[in-house]
Amino acid sequence: MNLTDMAGTGRNTNEGEFALIDRVLKPLAADTPAALGLTDDAAVLTPPKGKDLVLTKDAMVAGVHFREADLPGDIARKLLRVNLSDLAAMGATPVGYLLATFWPEDLPHAWITEFAEGLAEDQEEFGVGLLGGDTVRTSGPLSLSLTAIGSVAEGKALRRNGAGDGDLIVVSGTIGDGALGLRALNGQLPDLDPTSEEYLEDRYQLPEPRMALGRALVGKATSCIDISDGLIADIGHITEESGLGAVIEWEKVPLSEAAQAAVQSEPDLIATVLTGGDDYELAFTLPAERRDDLVKLAKEGGVPLTIIGEMIAGEGVRVRQADGNDMPLSVRGWQHF
Amino acid sequence: MNLTDMAGTGRNTNEGEFALIDRVLKPLAADTPAALGLTDDAAVLTPPKGKDLVLTKDAMVAGVHFREADLPGDIARKLLRVNLSDLAAMGATPVGYLLATFWPEDLPHAWITEFAEGLAEDQEEFGVGLLGGDTVRTSGPLSLSLTAIGSVAEGKALRRNGAGDGDLIVVSGTIGDGALGLRALNGQLPDLDPTSEEYLEDRYQLPEPRMALGRALVGKATSCIDISDGLIADIGHITEESGLGAVIEWEKVPLSEAAQAAVQSEPDLIATVLTGGDDYELAFTLPAERRDDLVKLAKEGGVPLTIIGEMIAGEGVRVRQADGNDMPLSVRGWQHF
Repeated sequence: MNLTDMAGTGRNTNEGEFALIDRVLKPLAADTPAALGLTDDAAVLTPPKGKDLVLTKDAMVAGVHFREADLPGDIARKLLRVNLSDLAAMGATPVGYLLATFWPEDLPHAWITEFAEGLAEDQEEFGVGLLGGDTVRTSGPLSLSLTAIGSVAEGKALRRNGAGDGDLIVVSGTIGDGALGLRALNGQLPDLDPTSEEYLEDRYQLPEPRMALGRALVGKATSCIDISDGLIADIGHITEESGLGAVIEWEKVPLSEAAQAAVQSEPDLIATVLTGGDDYELAFTLPAERRDDLVKLAKEGGVPLTIIGEMIAGEGVRVRQADGNDMPLSVRGWQHF
Repeated sequence: MNLTDMAGTGRNTNEGEFALIDRVLKPLAADTPAALGLTDDAAVLTPPKGKDLVLTKDAMVAGVHFREADLPGDIARKLLRVNLSDLAAMGATPVGYLLATFWPEDLPHAWITEFAEGLAEDQEEFGVGLLGGDTVRTSGPLSLSLTAIGSVAEGKALRRNGAGDGDLIVVSGTIGDGALGLRALNGQLPDLDPTSEEYLEDRYQLPEPRMALGRALVGKATSCIDISDGLIADIGHITEESGLGAVIEWEKVPLSEAAQAAVQSEPDLIATVLTGGDDYELAFTLPAERRDDLVKLAKEGGVPLTIIGEMIAGEGVRVRQADGNDMPLSVRGWQHF
């Protein structure tokens, strides 16, 4: 089944939605020949020659992964962007996506229209189109699932398991904004100035997947991941898969001015920065002798890069404070490892 | 993110589930090298040379697409099979799948284990493996989304738009069992004998995607679709995309003995047979001069094939009764076209 089929089943949708789906979803597939105009049982994609395909799927639920009050267009764009961020972490270029929507019975048509407008905007921005999907009704919260497909030179996908002892640990952009933004939206940062608050909220609601950086890292980084679970947890994934440990220098972790202001007024927020997640920056490892490549990589990636630590023999992720001591667990917050 | 990531977020799952997902979902990816052991941000698939990839995504919600009381293993297998049926309709061979699960907070671990066992069973049967996915919790009904990927010789995917005037309309297996099975499960066929009832219920709960037939039809059928929305609606998709009409002879539509018994005791069920859907048989068109190929196709497909009508100039789907008159709308039931 595809979007067109589902529109016709009656069991999932009513008559008016047939036209709605034609109007709002079919245009999203118009520039993607593989989608076959959403007329068939499936999409047919001719894979680019000499490339591997990279496939990822994320699910989101209202009230868990986004707030019910969020703008429909922002929800759509975040859904697409978190998947694109997974592609970036593998060094892949987006090809297309499939979408499943579980819409509450009473969701207004205007909401769906705005949702599709958000997708259209980001399709344009990231050069990607709708390949197919499914549309059903639910008695539960609005839920979404998106499968993104990208391509990367055969055998060249960035992995988590290639970091070497002594490799530099590098992150893009600033860390902690996403998790702090969620706190701000929930009214948990009452002392923060309005400018900082808005900045952090924007970072939470509309992450910037680092597509250009991911592509630039192919053949250079020894491992890569996008920071979705939280800096420590995600570096932890690299240590685990690479059979090594990691040391992060807390004072080297790049914070935005807004995050600095937040942490200054409430030092406990250091734990949020390190473990909160939703950054969608890339963390990667680079052999120390390639340190000079970072200037070029930052330029190609269009984002600042910061060395925050190094891979070491052993296991687990240590966070070193300015005084040279390891940060105690109570400050680092809840740990995955 | 992938299944592994999500297990670590804490926001979606609790500590015990980390181990659970490792135990029940990672084994499903063990024989699929492209899944990378579910350790990375995405799967990396080297496309088979000279092939197109076929991609489809279906969503299912408890209480809508399956019954809450259905066995977990059956729900899993049906989810996989309805997607495989879409691949069959395009003539594709399965490659792998991605899975998103929205699990209610109180879903027992035993349920999830049985769900995974159902997937394992059908992975074996259909030669397909898990590539990746996502696992989240929902306050709503159990919901599922699966993206299936198949391959077919480049440019050879079966479409809906190639039927020609005068082409024979052919269906596999028997029609109407799925929809009648759902009625039986809902206690709406009280007069039916227990053997027939069980047969129809099985057909609803565990459809048989016609993979071998789909492959055999490549290069032979002029159009193809799987019957999910209902025979008339799905033939309607072929007429619409091919710019033609269709005539179906009611008395040629193949019914199982159980469906015959049901229709005999309640003639109104003819509408259920023709429009109910959930058959997951294939309907396809074949040039009349290839009529003799049907014996070989039935053998290769491992399923009986029946000519039920032909494509004609015009539009829409007519159903002709034994007396030569068109079946009135009241008998054909609710129409999509």
